[in-house]
Amino acid sequence: MRYDIAIIGSGPGGLEAAITAKLRNKSVILFGNNNLSMKLTKAHKIENYLGLPDITGRRLANAYKRHLDQMGIEIVEDRIQMAYNMGDYYMLQGAGNEMYESSALIIATGVVAAKPLKGEEENLGKGVSYCATCDAALVKGKEVAVIGYDRSQEEEAAFLSEVASGVTYFPMYKDEPKLPKNVNIIKEHPTELRREDGLTKVITKEGDNEYGFFSVFVLREAVAPGRLVPGLLIDGPHIKVDRNMAANLPGCFACGDITGLPYQYIKAAGEGNVAALSAVRYLDSLKK
Amino acid sequence: MRYDIAIIGSGPGGLEAAITAKLRNKSVILFGNNNLSMKLTKAHKIENYLGLPDITGRRLANAYKRHLDQMGIEIVEDRIQMAYNMGDYYMLQGAGNEMYESSALIIATGVVAAKPLKGEEENLGKGVSYCATCDAALVKGKEVAVIGYDRSQEEEAAFLSEVASGVTYFPMYKDEPKLPKNVNIIKEHPTELRREDGLTKVITKEGDNEYGFFSVFVLREAVAPGRLVPGLLIDGPHIKVDRNMAANLPGCFACGDITGLPYQYIKAAGEGNVAALSAVRYLDSLKK
Repeated sequence: MRYDIAIIGSGPGGLEAAITAKLRNKSVILFGNNNLSMKLTKAHKIENYLGLPDITGRRLANAYKRHLDQMGIEIVEDRIQMAYNMGDYYMLQGAGNEMYESSALIIATGVVAAKPLKGEEENLGKGVSYCATCDAALVKGKEVAVIGYDRSQEEEAAFLSEVASGVTYFPMYKDEPKLPKNVNIIKEHPTELRREDGLTKVITKEGDNEYGFFSVFVLREAVAPGRLVPGLLIDGPHIKVDRNMAANLPGCFACGDITGLPYQYIKAAGEGNVAALSAVRYLDSLKK
Repeated sequence: MRYDIAIIGSGPGGLEAAITAKLRNKSVILFGNNNLSMKLTKAHKIENYLGLPDITGRRLANAYKRHLDQMGIEIVEDRIQMAYNMGDYYMLQGAGNEMYESSALIIATGVVAAKPLKGEEENLGKGVSYCATCDAALVKGKEVAVIGYDRSQEEEAAFLSEVASGVTYFPMYKDEPKLPKNVNIIKEHPTELRREDGLTKVITKEGDNEYGFFSVFVLREAVAPGRLVPGLLIDGPHIKVDRNMAANLPGCFACGDITGLPYQYIKAAGEGNVAALSAVRYLDSLKK
């Protein structure tokens, strides 16, 4: 089946886009997490979301969920790795290589708050990976490390522990990781990845220690947009969009933090609305 | 006193801008109506304001009011007639010729839904007026008409009835006008204003009647933006803004319907947030 609109991201931009598109009778597939956005649910207090004064991130997320439930919108928990422009449609590749098709695409993935580690981008594909599911076969019986930027990455580490001979997990957050017993947890902060002697070495801030692995998985909630959609015009960490939230590729729109500052919930939601209505107009233009 | 930011308009764009600016410790003056926006309070049902599913306009307006109250933000019920760019500040003229000053300006006046009447713009200043308070002195002892597009214009008509020798009121809405007894109400729909024999004639859809007056006041909730701020770059009924909601004049920003389609509450609120934060950045740049 080819969906009218695929939306990547379950923060306020993606959710508002899904709601607006569904109200306009478009078929929508929404990719994200059922706990919506880590950043949102952890927000202590939001004071300027007009109409919901002084609300915690948790309560705002619950209000969002009620809205989705009331409209019968479900979130597909697949991490889209790539989205290819195929002319008049998009082909999306999930984490388990599942493929999806849509006529229009809305990117609402948020921004990668963390800077890449030293050596991370240079060694991508050469001992550094962003996708556990994609590269699991390559690390069968090998020693690997996972640098997890939030708790949702623990699942990927657990999955790798079934395939690799050994998994070492570096949590980049404060919560205590919940992982299978055979996963080795090191509570140090990686600062650099270095390729040496056929191994990827993890150098941490804390010690003089270096840890060597066959492969290192760097897992964050968001994928950098230029990597997600080949050919997409970006501007630093952001997607270049116009006032209609249209990106440079036909039928591709974006909303929320990924389009630039300010990083604010109500701004993201407003842009989601505009992106969805622009996508609807694009879909209508295809029929003519 | 010179305010940091003056905001014209009490729809979702203006309100969100006021809240965000106040949270950033800026002094704000917000012009509008305490019943917020006619368009909003009359909206039957809003389904895509993320977090407040399936809400009536009335209830959404109440949620907005609670938000304002909680933050101690008041609405000044003055209709701004003109805002002049004075270099590094703005001078605003109220309906009673009261003057206000602000360093930055945010325009959130909404769009004029109704098209101008035939002959209206051509005869502006020549027997057609948009401002009862401004032009009251000119019509002392004369026969005038008021074409009122919403109930908030009745107050202006009542005021004119104290000055002019006679006032005829054409309501452009269904509710029964509440006006002083000496105001003559004609329930016909004006379609044209024609200047003839030193009078402004009101031609209505219903009859072959023509009504002649010394002056005709055409009163709508919103003032056309190009008329509100001299020098402002407009694009049809909209103000031209960039992605930061900045207009062409320094320190002037806009948000909501006035910046263009889609006319949606959550879009307006999101833009209000961006406009306020852009104004804050502008104010900070003045200090350097």
